[in-house]
Amino acid sequence: MSGFRELWDQLAPIGRDPVSGGYLRYAWEPAELACREWFRAQADARDMAVEEDGNGNLVAWRGTGDGPAVLTGSHFDSVPHGGAYDGPLGIVSAFLALDRLPERPGTRIGVAAFAEEEGARFGVPCLGSRLLAGVLDPERAAALTDRSGSTLADALGGRPAGRTDLLDRVGCFVELHVEQGRALDVSVGVGSAIWPHGRWRFDFAGEGNHAGTTRMADRRDPMLTYAYTVLAANKEARLRGAHATVGRVVVEPNATNAVPSLVRGWLDARAAEAATLDAMVEAIRKRAVERATRDGTEVTLTDESVSPEVAFDGGLVERLAGVLGAPVLPTGAGHDAGVLSAYVPTAMLFVRNPTGVSHAPAEHATDADCEAGVEALARVLRELA
Amino acid sequence: MSGFRELWDQLAPIGRDPVSGGYLRYAWEPAELACREWFRAQADARDMAVEEDGNGNLVAWRGTGDGPAVLTGSHFDSVPHGGAYDGPLGIVSAFLALDRLPERPGTRIGVAAFAEEEGARFGVPCLGSRLLAGVLDPERAAALTDRSGSTLADALGGRPAGRTDLLDRVGCFVELHVEQGRALDVSVGVGSAIWPHGRWRFDFAGEGNHAGTTRMADRRDPMLTYAYTVLAANKEARLRGAHATVGRVVVEPNATNAVPSLVRGWLDARAAEAATLDAMVEAIRKRAVERATRDGTEVTLTDESVSPEVAFDGGLVERLAGVLGAPVLPTGAGHDAGVLSAYVPTAMLFVRNPTGVSHAPAEHATDADCEAGVEALARVLRELA
Repeated sequence: MSGFRELWDQLAPIGRDPVSGGYLRYAWEPAELACREWFRAQADARDMAVEEDGNGNLVAWRGTGDGPAVLTGSHFDSVPHGGAYDGPLGIVSAFLALDRLPERPGTRIGVAAFAEEEGARFGVPCLGSRLLAGVLDPERAAALTDRSGSTLADALGGRPAGRTDLLDRVGCFVELHVEQGRALDVSVGVGSAIWPHGRWRFDFAGEGNHAGTTRMADRRDPMLTYAYTVLAANKEARLRGAHATVGRVVVEPNATNAVPSLVRGWLDARAAEAATLDAMVEAIRKRAVERATRDGTEVTLTDESVSPEVAFDGGLVERLAGVLGAPVLPTGAGHDAGVLSAYVPTAMLFVRNPTGVSHAPAEHATDADCEAGVEALARVLRELA
Repeated sequence: MSGFRELWDQLAPIGRDPVSGGYLRYAWEPAELACREWFRAQADARDMAVEEDGNGNLVAWRGTGDGPAVLTGSHFDSVPHGGAYDGPLGIVSAFLALDRLPERPGTRIGVAAFAEEEGARFGVPCLGSRLLAGVLDPERAAALTDRSGSTLADALGGRPAGRTDLLDRVGCFVELHVEQGRALDVSVGVGSAIWPHGRWRFDFAGEGNHAGTTRMADRRDPMLTYAYTVLAANKEARLRGAHATVGRVVVEPNATNAVPSLVRGWLDARAAEAATLDAMVEAIRKRAVERATRDGTEVTLTDESVSPEVAFDGGLVERLAGVLGAPVLPTGAGHDAGVLSAYVPTAMLFVRNPTGVSHAPAEHATDADCEAGVEALARVLRELA
C-alpha cells in the first residue's frame, strides 16, 4: 500500500515550470496528457477499467453490479503557473483511498479525471463536467478556441459527446480538494456550498494613436477606462464582502509608444448570495460605462460563464460531517462538484491549506493533512458504497 | 520618373495585417527584410551602391567625391499594427526626390534605412542610429532579447559594429517623416526640436492567489497598484501639459481566476522641457509607491531609455524654412534624426497628417501632400548638396 508521498512524487515533475515552480497543465496539452497516462497506469495496476465519456473525461471503475455507483475524483489541469494540489490531490487521494478499502461484491466505485476544470485553455471552466451533465451544447463547445486558435474539436479529435448515460449510473459524487482559503483549522472539512460566481469580459475600445504626439485631450485611451474599472471592481467587492478580481488583460497593440486601440479585461466575481453578485457586477458595469463617457471609449460586457449558487446535498453533507466529525464550510471556488450537484447528490471534502494560497506556485498542504484526507475519503467511500 | 503612388503601392502589401489593416514590420523579421530587398532593388535601379554599416543600417549612395555628403532617409520597421507612413514615407520620398534631382559632379547623397527605429522588437528605439552614433555599447546591444528570446546578435549574425566612419563622411542629415499630431495645416513643415522623452518600466510585484477564495483584505494584488498608476500618469501629464501613456502591460500568470503575482507596465512619458519630464515621472513614481503600501505590493522602476531634448541645427532649420517657405514646429515623437543631431547638423521635414493618428492602422497622409513632401525634399537636397 503506497503512502501519499510516494504516489504524489510521481506526478510532481509533470508540467512544472522550472522558473516559477508552478504548473502549466493545460487540458489535452502534453503535460496534462502525461497525467492522463499516469491515471491509466494507476487504474491498470488496480485492475480498474477506464471509461472515456467522449467529452474528455476519464473514469476508472472498480467492482461490478447494477446498483448506483459512488463517484469520486477531480481534475489534472491547472491555471497557468498554478499550484500542485488544486485538482490532482483529489485524484491521487481517490486511488489511495481505494487501496485502503477492501472491495465489496456488488458495489461500484469510480475515480474520475474531469477535463478542463480551470477553463485555462478554452475559457469555460468545468468544461468536461458541463458537457457530461448536458448543460453545455456540444456544438457550441466544439467551436471554442484556445489562444493559438485550435478548437476543442481539434483537441478532442471530434465533436464532444455531450450528455451520456454515465451520470445515470452514479448514485452520488464526492470530490476531495485542497481548501483554497484559510477557513479550515483542522485537517479535513466537508463542503456545504459554492458561492455563485462567474466570468465577465469587458472590451474597452478606443482609438490607437501615437503616445508621443497625441495631446492628452485628443485621446480616446481605453487603458484609462480599464484601470478605472479595475479599481471600481475592487471597491465594489469590498463594500459587499464579496470577491472581484481582474487577473487577465489583453491589449492591442500592446506597444510602449502607442495609445492602445483595445483593452480587454476579464472580471472574476463571486459573492455568498446571487443578489449580491448581480448587484456588484451591475455596479461595476455602471462605473465602467460612466468612465468610458469621460474617456471617449466604448465598453462592451459579455457574460462568459455564470454559475448560480450551489448548495451541496444537505443530507449527504450532514452524514459525512457526522462520520468524520469534521466541520462544514462553504467555498468561493468553482468545482466540477458544483456542476454535478444538480444531477446527483454531491458533496466535497476539503484538505487544510495552511497559507490559503491557491492558483499560485506556493499553494501547499502538509503530507500529514493529505494523509488525513485520504483516510477521510476512504471512510466516506466505505460509508457510501 | 515614377509618381508617389506607383512606388508607394510596391511597399503597401508588405507586412500588412489583413485583419487590423496595420503593419507588422519588426526589424529583421520577414516583412522588414522584404522591405530591405525592395530598398536594394531601388538602389540598383538608380546605380546606387548600398553600404551596410554592420549595425543593420543600409545606405544607398549616389555620386562620388571627397566632400561631405548629404544624408536623408528614415526606417522601415513599425510598431505592432502601426501605420504605413511612419518611416517608409521618408525612404520612398528620398528615392523619388533623387529622381527629380539631376546628378551634380562631386556631390554625394545617401539614402538611409535605419534599423529598429521603433524599438518594437528589442525594446530600444532608434537602435540602429544609436549604434551608428556610438551612444549604445555594441556588447550590451548584442545581448538585447526580443519577446521570443532571440538576441540582437542572432538577428544581425554577430555583434554590432558600433561607431564606424560613416558619420564622418556626412555633412548633414535631413529626415522626412509623416507628422504625428495635427500641428500642420499646410503640406510640409520643418522640424525644430524633439521633446525630451523616455520609457520607464514599472514592475508591480504582489502575491499570486485564487480569485475565488482569497478575501479582499488578505490580497496583495499588483493589478490594483498598476491600475492606480495608469490613472496617476494620466493626471500628472494633464496637470503639466505633457504626455504620459501606459500602452503595454504584461501580467503573470494572466489567468481569469488568479490574483496576479506580477504586473509589468511600461510608461512612455514626454514633455517640452526636461525639468517637466523629470518632475512628472517622479510624481508618478511617488504615487505608485504610496499606492503599493496600501496594496501590500512592491514597485520597482527601471529607466529603459531616456532621450534628452533635441534642438535641431538652428541655422539649418532656418535655411530650410526659408527655401520652402514652410512653418517650423517641434514634435513629441522620437526619431533617428534626434539621435544623429548630436553628431551632424540635422533637420526634419514633416508631411501633414490630417487626422493626427499615428502608430495605428488609420495613420494617413494624402497623395498630394506626399507629392509635396517629395518636391520639398528635392528642393532641400538641391540646396544642400
